[in-house]
Amino acid sequence: MIKGLTRAGIGNVGDFQNFVKLASQYGFAAVDAAGSELEALIADKGQEGASGWLKEQGVQVGTIGLAPEWRSTEEQFRSGLIRLTQDAAAAAALGCTTCCTYVLPSTDYNAAHFMALATRRMRICAQILGAYGIRLGLEFVGPHHLRTAWKHPFIWDLDSTLDWIEAIGEPNVGLLFDAYHWYTNEHTLEDIYKLKASQIVHVHINDAADLPIPEVLDNARVYPGEGVIDLGGFLGALKQIGYQGVISQEILTREPSDEPAEVLLKRSQDGFNKVYSLAGLN
Amino acid sequence: MIKGLTRAGIGNVGDFQNFVKLASQYGFAAVDAAGSELEALIADKGQEGASGWLKEQGVQVGTIGLAPEWRSTEEQFRSGLIRLTQDAAAAAALGCTTCCTYVLPSTDYNAAHFMALATRRMRICAQILGAYGIRLGLEFVGPHHLRTAWKHPFIWDLDSTLDWIEAIGEPNVGLLFDAYHWYTNEHTLEDIYKLKASQIVHVHINDAADLPIPEVLDNARVYPGEGVIDLGGFLGALKQIGYQGVISQEILTREPSDEPAEVLLKRSQDGFNKVYSLAGLN
Amino acid sequence: MIKGLTRAGIGNVGDFQNFVKLASQYGFAAVDAAGSELEALIADKGQEGASGWLKEQGVQVGTIGLAPEWRSTEEQFRSGLIRLTQDAAAAAALGCTTCCTYVLPSTDYNAAHFMALATRRMRICAQILGAYGIRLGLEFVGPHHLRTAWKHPFIWDLDSTLDWIEAIGEPNVGLLFDAYHWYTNEHTLEDIYKLKASQIVHVHINDAADLPIPEVLDNARVYPGEGVIDLGGFLGALKQIGYQGVISQEILTREPSDEPAEVLLKRSQDGFNKVYSLAGLN
Amino acid sequence: MIKGLTRAGIGNVGDFQNFVKLASQYGFAAVDAAGSELEALIADKGQEGASGWLKEQGVQVGTIGLAPEWRSTEEQFRSGLIRLTQDAAAAAALGCTTCCTYVLPSTDYNAAHFMALATRRMRICAQILGAYGIRLGLEFVGPHHLRTAWKHPFIWDLDSTLDWIEAIGEPNVGLLFDAYHWYTNEHTLEDIYKLKASQIVHVHINDAADLPIPEVLDNARVYPGEGVIDLGGFLGALKQIGYQGVISQEILTREPSDEPAEVLLKRSQDGFNKVYSLAGLN
Repeated sequence: MIKGLTRAGIGNVGDFQNFVKLASQYGFAAVDAAGSELEALIADKGQEGASGWLKEQGVQVGTIGLAPEWRSTEEQFRSGLIRLTQDAAAAAALGCTTCCTYVLPSTDYNAAHFMALATRRMRICAQILGAYGIRLGLEFVGPHHLRTAWKHPFIWDLDSTLDWIEAIGEPNVGLLFDAYHWYTNEHTLEDIYKLKASQIVHVHINDAADLPIPEVLDNARVYPGEGVIDLGGFLGALKQIGYQGVISQEILTREPSDEPAEVLLKRSQDGFNKVYSLAGLN
Repeated sequence: MIKGLTRAGIGNVGDFQNFVKLASQYGFAAVDAAGSELEALIADKGQEGASGWLKEQGVQVGTIGLAPEWRSTEEQFRSGLIRLTQDAAAAAALGCTTCCTYVLPSTDYNAAHFMALATRRMRICAQILGAYGIRLGLEFVGPHHLRTAWKHPFIWDLDSTLDWIEAIGEPNVGLLFDAYHWYTNEHTLEDIYKLKASQIVHVHINDAADLPIPEVLDNARVYPGEGVIDLGGFLGALKQIGYQGVISQEILTREPSDEPAEVLLKRSQDGFNKVYSLAGLN
Repeated sequence: MIKGLTRAGIGNVGDFQNFVKLASQYGFAAVDAAGSELEALIADKGQEGASGWLKEQGVQVGTIGLAPEWRSTEEQFRSGLIRLTQDAAAAAALGCTTCCTYVLPSTDYNAAHFMALATRRMRICAQILGAYGIRLGLEFVGPHHLRTAWKHPFIWDLDSTLDWIEAIGEPNVGLLFDAYHWYTNEHTLEDIYKLKASQIVHVHINDAADLPIPEVLDNARVYPGEGVIDLGGFLGALKQIGYQGVISQEILTREPSDEPAEVLLKRSQDGFNKVYSLAGLN
Repeated sequence: MIKGLTRAGIGNVGDFQNFVKLASQYGFAAVDAAGSELEALIADKGQEGASGWLKEQGVQVGTIGLAPEWRSTEEQFRSGLIRLTQDAAAAAALGCTTCCTYVLPSTDYNAAHFMALATRRMRICAQILGAYGIRLGLEFVGPHHLRTAWKHPFIWDLDSTLDWIEAIGEPNVGLLFDAYHWYTNEHTLEDIYKLKASQIVHVHINDAADLPIPEVLDNARVYPGEGVIDLGGFLGALKQIGYQGVISQEILTREPSDEPAEVLLKRSQDGFNKVYSLAGLN
């Protein structure tokens, strides 16, 4: 399983090329990106140049974010589809085969109606991505406070998300599986064993402070190995079911850290080493 | 547009064959049926015999009900699929090309999750029906008291239902459009003009007592022309957009009437004549 | 039914704005366009300006062509998807709700494999277009010489195309129905009566010289009313099933005419008048 | 990977219960079945009884055959859908999660049209099976003589079949991957490495006589390890990509062997032992 980074939790790493270089330097082999960052890289180096440069750095693109705003009006959604198509083309050109988005656990809309809208919108996105050989990962979001942050409950756990994926009905849709949301849902290793690797599009790891689970906040994440989540078990279970993709760290916090990127990158790699070792991964 | 009947509001008309005969006698050219009634008719008369007998009576099958219980557990849903396939085969054999179900406006389930489940289930039903050239009609249910009869709001109006139909994504899914639900949603003639005839799978008419709309109960329906719904406008608008299918009466009431079927059938036909005439239909 | 024009058969009408003006001047209310022409118009006048200008001219966009090259390699197909998304956005902005492509009746590829590829590609296009409320019309191509112009037979008639549309399985896919292909397939008025208006996305008319049907060439079309096709019957049948969309002329010829556009436009309108009158259309 | 049997190549093993007992006795842990055989078993022993009995025998159902005749008329296809639904219910009740069919490499129909029909039919079957958690496996058929046995070429190799699976577009459709067809297509181990385990629904093994590949006949198969196919490589590659399902033997021959079942079952198990050992499987 490939060690990856998002920008969350590593301080200011500058532009995309600098981000990639630092990731590489600190032992990471993947970075999550915005599609527009990939387009900029291609604009700068040409497609082959960009592809070659990533290879030189030993860094692949872990995933791109889903550009269209699918949680708002139809007009907003539509207005992101050209961007999505461009992002998909850029991602495919650089060998990235996944695109992800997160799902908020409550909504101010009528929840049933919004689910219908979201299902159609996800199917359209999945079809566009599928044309480029890219899979779409949906991230359920577990922290309890978000389940009542908006008026009506939406979905936040593994099983509901799998049911939604079936409702979307496209072969290239699966999970962005984040340890933090697995933990805040009190899901188990058994829940992971029941999955097939092919259902998992992308993985995030984070750790949580030692608090009662209902009090764990979405933006109070800590570095892998510094909290109480059984990340060794989590990663070991993913390994056991055959997942071989990217594991990206995404430390969402209320305030960005003011420590230098180098310190935070080292801390991140140390965290990965610790939990990989617990999982029997090298 | 073809005058049709359901069993609701016409007293005890006995078995299916008797229902058809009485419908025919009182000037109706269609009856809504259960798939099992069609199978029984075919078992009794053979397929050609059944088909010929319906033609002799001048009565077609308006629609069949959707057999699988899609509002409950997965097991319950699955256990109805063999029946659905049998119903579809029987309906197709007798020239019936529609199958309908109603959608309750609230639910005890998490509404978003239930919408995901229901979307997948409807797609499966639509595929099975589509194999037999049958369309699936979804009936939104407008009365206000049902919107809070269960824990969470689901969907109850035209636009949400059209959005759901798009989420299901199958070409053979459309509306069962009931005047009572159009009225209790305070939808307008303009709303009908915006539809295409091809979006309407089946139509029900009923009338409503003169009460404030939020107090109109689902099971307090009256005969066409005996209430305050603008059924002339409703039917005229359907005619204008080119709808040529069946218009079935469905008078849901708290208690069944104790008047003889013959009286109620005549009253129904009188009601149809009145509102058809208002709509400029002969 | 709205009288429309393609550029085929009307000489050199210059750029898009001139084309629209001439169409308007000669009594046509629709023109078929390339998506890029719509984008150019919007770039020139702004979205509201473009929309208003078309209204002033009394001309709507009949349909746009499907940009992605779906008959070649996967790379070629993919490379057209950004354009398709842009075209769809422009078309939607100007109120155009259809996009069309034609289907060659033979192929150098393995026909079954190509049908599988084409089915997937059409589904992707239909999804993208559907996001913008646009339907996709597939035009079967009847002339006999094209059935053997490439190595393997593909599809060329109405029923096969309807079956393909069902295989694609998207609600927004239907027919571009061209009188020339109806004629060269020896389809009948009965074949039209069996259709629903909702299955027809767009219509082309052309006429054919008085030759044995197997000798009628695709690029030897003549003006409506100047040949032997029963265009009165064709249009009357479309009217009868409730088609209310655009009827565009598309006179494909081996050599472009060297007559002035004004002469050809008048000849076209005369042809429309003649066949509309035969169909009882004003 | 689980050793399994079809009835082809093991002589007369009598009814289904006897087949299971003999399979068990000779070291096989799976048998391919007809859905109707599962229904008969359930009718005989009850659902729990049937399930328990299979467990006692240490034998699971490898796969069931796809009942509807999808290669002929629409009527024929439709008439198999009730059976398919019943088969799916029985299979699900006994823990079988796959259903398979083979694809002939040529056809007397127009190949493109037939591909369109077959795509729609497979989608319907996949939806019905999917309702029961069952996957559909499509077996491409490689022997050269069948490519011209009917009028028009259809599809016969891995890549075309994968493209078809994408055209069908349902998440639960994959490959029945047969070593004989892999061999007669001259596919390589690299071709297997490019697959994901999740794309493979079921596997067949057979061996081939030492003949020029174009002369290898479909019904001249020999026991695993008795021919020239690199079954060690084949199985090893499947293991490497993570396939963990059933490997069933299917020895199609012109004439059934007249040797006793016991002899043929032992020969089959010896063959499995030989090729499993070559693949480093125990």
